[in-house]
Amino acid sequence: MIDFFSTLASMNVPGRNINPHISVDCVIFGFSTKMLKVLLIGREYTNPEGKLQKDYKLPGDFIANNEDLDLAASRTLEELTGLKDIYLQQFAFFGKPDRISRKEDIEWLKNNTGHDIHRVVTAAYYSLISVTVSSSESAIKNNATWIDIQHIPHLAFDHSTIISKGLAHLQGKLRSEPIGFELLPERFTIRELQTLYEVILGCTLDNRNFRKKILKSKYMVQLEEKQSGVAHKPAYYYRFDKNIYEKYKSASLGFNF
Amino acid sequence: MIDFFSTLASMNVPGRNINPHISVDCVIFGFSTKMLKVLLIGREYTNPEGKLQKDYKLPGDFIANNEDLDLAASRTLEELTGLKDIYLQQFAFFGKPDRISRKEDIEWLKNNTGHDIHRVVTAAYYSLISVTVSSSESAIKNNATWIDIQHIPHLAFDHSTIISKGLAHLQGKLRSEPIGFELLPERFTIRELQTLYEVILGCTLDNRNFRKKILKSKYMVQLEEKQSGVAHKPAYYYRFDKNIYEKYKSASLGFNF
Repeated sequence: MIDFFSTLASMNVPGRNINPHISVDCVIFGFSTKMLKVLLIGREYTNPEGKLQKDYKLPGDFIANNEDLDLAASRTLEELTGLKDIYLQQFAFFGKPDRISRKEDIEWLKNNTGHDIHRVVTAAYYSLISVTVSSSESAIKNNATWIDIQHIPHLAFDHSTIISKGLAHLQGKLRSEPIGFELLPERFTIRELQTLYEVILGCTLDNRNFRKKILKSKYMVQLEEKQSGVAHKPAYYYRFDKNIYEKYKSASLGFNF
Repeated sequence: MIDFFSTLASMNVPGRNINPHISVDCVIFGFSTKMLKVLLIGREYTNPEGKLQKDYKLPGDFIANNEDLDLAASRTLEELTGLKDIYLQQFAFFGKPDRISRKEDIEWLKNNTGHDIHRVVTAAYYSLISVTVSSSESAIKNNATWIDIQHIPHLAFDHSTIISKGLAHLQGKLRSEPIGFELLPERFTIRELQTLYEVILGCTLDNRNFRKKILKSKYMVQLEEKQSGVAHKPAYYYRFDKNIYEKYKSASLGFNF
């Protein structure tokens, strides 16, 4: 018996030879102006009392035998959500023996794979993309949905732990590399950049310190244009110069701790 | 038939119920004043021509069913090398379907496990420790041996790729966090610190720039003592102040890219 919402991609491919010991899970973060979201898949399962319930899980799947792990992650993401050509970064693997221990999870796996599965090691990948209203409507299919990171509902398996760890990796990356610029329009104000940092880091930053620190970066280029049609004092626009960043980076010793 | 040098820890424990799909491998880097080394295990195998050969592999093993991945890594390291209480950091997993494809490797696995093994996903861990002459003699057992990273011999499976990736992670960490100080004596000269960076990063750094950059760090505390009994102008000793570092780190915005 297969659930009405089939949320394991493998189940869509009859005869795919899965390896029931190893899976991949994708934590896709979506930045949308003032909010950080994560892409989840609705799942229907039967609780121990026999009632049909709905919760969510990460886009993930067992790997097929003879399938490369990294390719399994891209394949799964595309099959389950429609998102493709996303740069997925390995960040951790989860291998606690009791990570699949809730009765309903074991039952659900049995219904969806035909195997008695108790022990799965999962390789987790993450990515950060920009989510505009149009992309969030068009890009995702099935029962995939973007959910505010501040309001994550009940999740299957240990997926809330995987999301927390993925977020910590993303925040570490944002502090050490200029990955945020790709999510902003080509020209942006310091305030817009600060909001991006605040949303992803999940905290409020001091305006003066942020401004001072970011303007020290040689790759922040001030444009001649200012904002127009704003009620407050118009702010200058900036752009991020990737060439300057690359040059500065390779010339520097690297460590700034 | 089990090889004379049994280099899979599991083989030492009759009845251990291994999972032949998932393994752990440990890349232990050893810093010894002027050299970076890696801990390898000698392996005997029969080449396709039927001749007994010797090469090396990382300390690694299949996980036991119901064994936590992180604990499997510590257990394997201790069983194979005698090293214990080492902080092991996950850094990547290796899951290419053809990573075990050489005839002699497949044969060796069969002899050592009794299974026909073609596909194994391995979780890789690394650590950096100090190797003094005394510790390198006492800490390791069996046929474990420290080998200069510049002169790595022929390795089993994809273990040279795993070491390269592990080294890149270590170098990234060294550039972003003050992990090197723990390998130096409590008081050290700037020159000693620079040598540590050069050895681990595998490059020569400009003396003046290094000095300038490192002295900007608030947590480098100059001591009153200077070197004595040296032919050149004696240099001041410094110490690393972890408390200042922690305070500075939590107060800072973090990103210095």
